[in-house]
Amino acid sequence: MPPPPTASPTVPDPARRAAALGVREHVERVLTGFLDDQRHVLGELGEDCEPLLEAVSTLLAGGKRLRPAFCYWGFRGADGGVPDAAEEGIVTAAAALELFQAAALLHDDVMDDSDTRRGKPAAHRWFAGLHADAGWSGSAERFGLSGAVLAGDLCLAWSDELYQRAPLEDDALRRGRRVFETMRTQLMGGQYLDMLEQASSARLGPAGAVDRARRVVRFKSAKYSVEHPLLLGATLAGAPQPLLADLSRFGLALGEAFQLRDDVLGVFGDPGETGKPAGDDLREGKRTVLVALAVQAASPEQAAVVAQHLGDPALDEDGVAALRRVLVDTGALDGVERIIDEQVDVACSTLDAAPLAEPARAALHELVVAATSRRS
Amino acid sequence: MPPPPTASPTVPDPARRAAALGVREHVERVLTGFLDDQRHVLGELGEDCEPLLEAVSTLLAGGKRLRPAFCYWGFRGADGGVPDAAEEGIVTAAAALELFQAAALLHDDVMDDSDTRRGKPAAHRWFAGLHADAGWSGSAERFGLSGAVLAGDLCLAWSDELYQRAPLEDDALRRGRRVFETMRTQLMGGQYLDMLEQASSARLGPAGAVDRARRVVRFKSAKYSVEHPLLLGATLAGAPQPLLADLSRFGLALGEAFQLRDDVLGVFGDPGETGKPAGDDLREGKRTVLVALAVQAASPEQAAVVAQHLGDPALDEDGVAALRRVLVDTGALDGVERIIDEQVDVACSTLDAAPLAEPARAALHELVVAATSRRS
Repeated sequence: MPPPPTASPTVPDPARRAAALGVREHVERVLTGFLDDQRHVLGELGEDCEPLLEAVSTLLAGGKRLRPAFCYWGFRGADGGVPDAAEEGIVTAAAALELFQAAALLHDDVMDDSDTRRGKPAAHRWFAGLHADAGWSGSAERFGLSGAVLAGDLCLAWSDELYQRAPLEDDALRRGRRVFETMRTQLMGGQYLDMLEQASSARLGPAGAVDRARRVVRFKSAKYSVEHPLLLGATLAGAPQPLLADLSRFGLALGEAFQLRDDVLGVFGDPGETGKPAGDDLREGKRTVLVALAVQAASPEQAAVVAQHLGDPALDEDGVAALRRVLVDTGALDGVERIIDEQVDVACSTLDAAPLAEPARAALHELVVAATSRRS
Repeated sequence: MPPPPTASPTVPDPARRAAALGVREHVERVLTGFLDDQRHVLGELGEDCEPLLEAVSTLLAGGKRLRPAFCYWGFRGADGGVPDAAEEGIVTAAAALELFQAAALLHDDVMDDSDTRRGKPAAHRWFAGLHADAGWSGSAERFGLSGAVLAGDLCLAWSDELYQRAPLEDDALRRGRRVFETMRTQLMGGQYLDMLEQASSARLGPAGAVDRARRVVRFKSAKYSVEHPLLLGATLAGAPQPLLADLSRFGLALGEAFQLRDDVLGVFGDPGETGKPAGDDLREGKRTVLVALAVQAASPEQAAVVAQHLGDPALDEDGVAALRRVLVDTGALDGVERIIDEQVDVACSTLDAAPLAEPARAALHELVVAATSRRS
């Protein structure tokens, strides 16, 4: 007989795991059913559009479903019950977030010209491969880019379609839309700020670099990945303003910690676990908070290493190692870990003080751990 | 004193013009107000996102507003009245189509790597220019591509937001969404068919080329530009099934004629009027019905001219002239004009027989002329 499971503050107990797994499985079921419906809509055009569906399905298969989980537990925490009638409604709205995320990733990979996503070829590479394998005319690369742009556009349209299909009251959907819409617009704005920061930060210099990087994190990640999904769920449940304010504070803190963990993994993570080649963020020249902290604290020699290697598409292992040394020696890595710890503390204390219904509080505590202690 | 205006079946009389202009002005007003609202939403991120709004505004300024007009007159034709209360609702829903079209154009220009749109630099070129002018680091071209992808994503999200804001009954919006959603999905499928056709048609050869090109026209243009906007308007007004069937038949016929006119203008149009460089469609290697008809009727010598020049990015004036000769000498141009005439006849006779309320029938007759006899 296996030993009985043990519970600790950081290791989720089996009941909580099961609950989280339940959301995940419901979301999968909703997404699969929805894509089947879309197969019929596209089927009117013949079978040639099948690759678009395949690209979307492949991408959707690999998600952590963090955003749907935040949305679901925001709803449950505000609602306080498990009304069976509302379960399908909130899961459907939560699944819509996953389609939106798929759109963001498909277009992000095109914009960054990334090779891989979740350990597989990025969609634009995959479409380019279809073109090359078939021996078609024209540029395989352009075909790939176009296929991924269209697949992302489909996901964007479908996200909204799925949201609006959620079997919830019209009034609830209308309230929730305001959050959903703000999330979409501000994510795209955040992505623009991000590319602006990548392009202009060398010119702007170290002063203010950390503030600018944290602003990007706030809009591109913290609001989008945690705050808005939580607020969407809670708003659909009709949460009162004070609870929304608590969830907002919790979400922004956890969301920042989540993204900073991502940034650390992007440089120091194990490619076998992250599914991304080591140092890709450095090759792309991403101006993360980690990098900004290093730039602000760098000696002239260290600054020269950053200037030489950061954003070099041909960066080799030695270059990656040199940049990692700067990130460690300047104290930037410690600094980021410190911010993560601080934000996790803010998130946890906000969670403990908020008037949340169980088991939502426990589930959200578990999500704090999952989002910030992960290795992939 | 100027001579009094004269009316003929093909020259719209001033009253009809005024009505069409009215829709246009209402649509402008709705779009302007909506973009102002979005400026506030993006304003939370600071002022750096202003270029995204500028790119969208610039693109929106140049539209013909054909889709909103079809939507509006579909509504009026089915409804039979001019209830003031519904006017704002239908104009808002119609304006949402213009945002969707902006998204399609922004992404289309990225996919085709087009230089210009409506006589101005395409958005991705404009963003690249911002980058170059500021002397930022990294690739200006990639910055441009990313800016245009994001601007298109915003328009896609906003289109749905504006639709859902339309002050119409929830039931009407829900009915209309089915048309709106099918339109979005099938347009993106149609665009994929289009790029597949561009890539594979040389390999597939002349057999079936016209059928394949007409399938692309059906889904990428006829349904999207005319049928679905009309059906959206009529569905929002609660039109009965037989009228929807008539509008569908009318829309598909007119939509095909509209796109074929576009294809002819793309090769034989006056750049001063179309706003596009002469021969751009030929340089891009577009596999239009016009080209497909030529390919199917070509002698070996003519086929060699097509194989040599079509899709050559460096095509010069002599090459354009050589291709034009093939399009004329094979009878392809006459063939396309014949299809346009046939489809216009189908559209007009369907319109005359349909149980439509005036002044919608007259306005739709006028739109037939505007869509198929235009020079830009």
